[in-house]
Amino acid sequence: MAYTTITTAAEDNILTITLNRPDRMNAFNGEMMYDLIAAFDEADSRDDVRAVIVTGAGKAFCAGADLGAGGATFDRNARKDREPIPEVDGKPDLSHQAARDGGGRVTLRIFQCLKPVIGAINGAAVGIGVTMQLPMDVRLCSENARFGFVFSRRGIVPEAASSWFLPRLVGISQALDWCYSGRVFPAAEAKAGGLVKEIYPADELLPAARKLALEYAEGAPVSLALTRHMMWRMLGADHPMEAHKVDSRGIFHRGKSDDVKEGVTSFLEKRPAKFTGKVSADMPEYFPWWDEPQYR
Amino acid sequence: MAYTTITTAAEDNILTITLNRPDRMNAFNGEMMYDLIAAFDEADSRDDVRAVIVTGAGKAFCAGADLGAGGATFDRNARKDREPIPEVDGKPDLSHQAARDGGGRVTLRIFQCLKPVIGAINGAAVGIGVTMQLPMDVRLCSENARFGFVFSRRGIVPEAASSWFLPRLVGISQALDWCYSGRVFPAAEAKAGGLVKEIYPADELLPAARKLALEYAEGAPVSLALTRHMMWRMLGADHPMEAHKVDSRGIFHRGKSDDVKEGVTSFLEKRPAKFTGKVSADMPEYFPWWDEPQYR
Amino acid sequence: MAYTTITTAAEDNILTITLNRPDRMNAFNGEMMYDLIAAFDEADSRDDVRAVIVTGAGKAFCAGADLGAGGATFDRNARKDREPIPEVDGKPDLSHQAARDGGGRVTLRIFQCLKPVIGAINGAAVGIGVTMQLPMDVRLCSENARFGFVFSRRGIVPEAASSWFLPRLVGISQALDWCYSGRVFPAAEAKAGGLVKEIYPADELLPAARKLALEYAEGAPVSLALTRHMMWRMLGADHPMEAHKVDSRGIFHRGKSDDVKEGVTSFLEKRPAKFTGKVSADMPEYFPWWDEPQYR
Repeated sequence: MAYTTITTAAEDNILTITLNRPDRMNAFNGEMMYDLIAAFDEADSRDDVRAVIVTGAGKAFCAGADLGAGGATFDRNARKDREPIPEVDGKPDLSHQAARDGGGRVTLRIFQCLKPVIGAINGAAVGIGVTMQLPMDVRLCSENARFGFVFSRRGIVPEAASSWFLPRLVGISQALDWCYSGRVFPAAEAKAGGLVKEIYPADELLPAARKLALEYAEGAPVSLALTRHMMWRMLGADHPMEAHKVDSRGIFHRGKSDDVKEGVTSFLEKRPAKFTGKVSADMPEYFPWWDEPQYR
Repeated sequence: MAYTTITTAAEDNILTITLNRPDRMNAFNGEMMYDLIAAFDEADSRDDVRAVIVTGAGKAFCAGADLGAGGATFDRNARKDREPIPEVDGKPDLSHQAARDGGGRVTLRIFQCLKPVIGAINGAAVGIGVTMQLPMDVRLCSENARFGFVFSRRGIVPEAASSWFLPRLVGISQALDWCYSGRVFPAAEAKAGGLVKEIYPADELLPAARKLALEYAEGAPVSLALTRHMMWRMLGADHPMEAHKVDSRGIFHRGKSDDVKEGVTSFLEKRPAKFTGKVSADMPEYFPWWDEPQYR
Repeated sequence: MAYTTITTAAEDNILTITLNRPDRMNAFNGEMMYDLIAAFDEADSRDDVRAVIVTGAGKAFCAGADLGAGGATFDRNARKDREPIPEVDGKPDLSHQAARDGGGRVTLRIFQCLKPVIGAINGAAVGIGVTMQLPMDVRLCSENARFGFVFSRRGIVPEAASSWFLPRLVGISQALDWCYSGRVFPAAEAKAGGLVKEIYPADELLPAARKLALEYAEGAPVSLALTRHMMWRMLGADHPMEAHKVDSRGIFHRGKSDDVKEGVTSFLEKRPAKFTGKVSADMPEYFPWWDEPQYR
């Protein structure tokens, strides 16, 4: 793959995506947006990839939007790394794809991922550097990590669909406290607030993320993909009946699969399971059970 | 009642439902599904029952689906304890009632219960053994309890509408961590993750559950039934106005009831209240305020 | 302003609203309902107000509905401080505005507020005294605070749209435990359960609330107003795409504003920002992006 702002490396069924602009504290720009979207396409299309880790090169995870353009950074008319927004009747057409916030294009792509996604937050994670983590399933961090939802201090607004994700992860009160204050806070506050699962010494972070990814990767890949979307998508369902409809179909389709026969037999024989079902070929016909909403 | 896989016992206004296949670690089968549904019908229909406790006989709470059929356990064509799924045009009709996941039939019945429901988790609770707890209101557990959302390790998917319940109880990140890993975890992890309220020595678990149930049972039964459904149902409401519509009617109808006169007067007189309103006869006319969605 | 049951005072861009019936433990009545709604109108209309604190005069925060009418307190036909409910065909028209629960009128007004709202809970907060806090963004409390969702013990139901708010703040299980039991519980339990952010010695509560409000007030006022509604409103959105639509517009509109130029430039120059955008004049044209639901 021809990435310029990130690297990817697959080993032991785990794809590690590394934000890789260490001289700019891995600041986010238009190229990184396209690279990250492509990296998750890579993760989903490769059956040898059963889990994903996202981390940063150097001292930072991601220091936020690249402010190299100064006060014009968030002025889309001044941005050359993004497709221009077309006009209708002399006004910008904000319903056009080109008007989409770049952070949100990334987080919605991560939301759609078919593999478990672990954030390994190695250092500063500010603005889009923290909001891009929210659709990941689990966040681990280094003692050196720090976080900041700094939008109100820059005069802008929370982006990357973080107004949907953040209150669901940490509760509305903690979400607002972090976003109102714009406070840059340490790992301990992130853990106490429910944003990260665990804190590690810097050199133990990636090993811990890999250990967790390997644990997840032992599950049946088709089951993991279904589980990911059952859990995330049901956050938007009004009634448990919606889940019951979907999981009844899941139990039926998966119940007669070779994976289930192997899963139950290996359990009864007290040996590790070897699952053969592939996300590329064996997702059940009822998947996806939803219509993905379009930007407009 | 003619239960074969459970027992029920009422005392001091509390109905205790005990999973009772101790030689099979209370493993779940089709009979237990029908028995549990009937037991909650019993709980709702008896005005002397003001709260419900669910626990297990012997060492386990419920070790999950009975795997006596081995690799064919989840293959519905091989199941004789469940009604067969009819076919339409040579294909199974998954929208038919018979295609419903058995665990979900139980959890949706618990969801509809009109009395507070406390889980007293005395031992291993795996698969349906843990997902059946999720629509209960509060879970207490023994030091011996352990829990496992083992679905991905069996090649199957989370069932019993757990994809709706679990992220709402413990957050999406913890829910996915448990479901991806399939890890069997001890009581302390269940409490830290928000799944259980409190851990007790084995012989103190049922007394603690009974104490809590008695505390709940002192409330007005009609108020408790309304409260249960206001809270659970509003999880599916987009806007607090939905709650305001329902509770305005609640304040009006209950405000002129004998229960409120007794509740306020007893408070002012600093004596226990004696509520006379019954769930069987005195639910207000606006209840239920929703249309229960149907399986299809 | 001509308030009779509360006082308001603005200082350093913070409006402090004080419940002020200390001889009645700040018990809630119809006048207080109207006063609180007017106070939040005041907060929103004054550009010099950038954050709001709500507290109580004397020993209590608010002891709940004024029970001076005894057993008739919740009987609307007996209430003279509220507009009577009109009848249709000889029956009360519960879809009429006059039938609205008074607590809910207050909490929905707070929900609509355009400024950060901090509860500084100085003492007993029972019934409407606690449910009125739920649409506030953050709650701090004194060591003397105690809380009680006592509705089932009075034979009534949770009001003030608390069935929507409470499970979203503290989880469904904790919400039901407090509402079923009607238990009056201390500050420590409120913090452990996620209802309050922090506990302070009595004389440090208001200083702490002011310090937090001042921190919030340093953000751009238009950003704070947008952030408040993005976070709260997205609790009702089924899919993160809804947030992505709204924040894409937010990034576009705010990105070209003077506030963003100042926010980024001041950050790069390592000095405090001076934001000039006003809530009264500079909310972007896409705000509000929702139709406020009506009582009916």
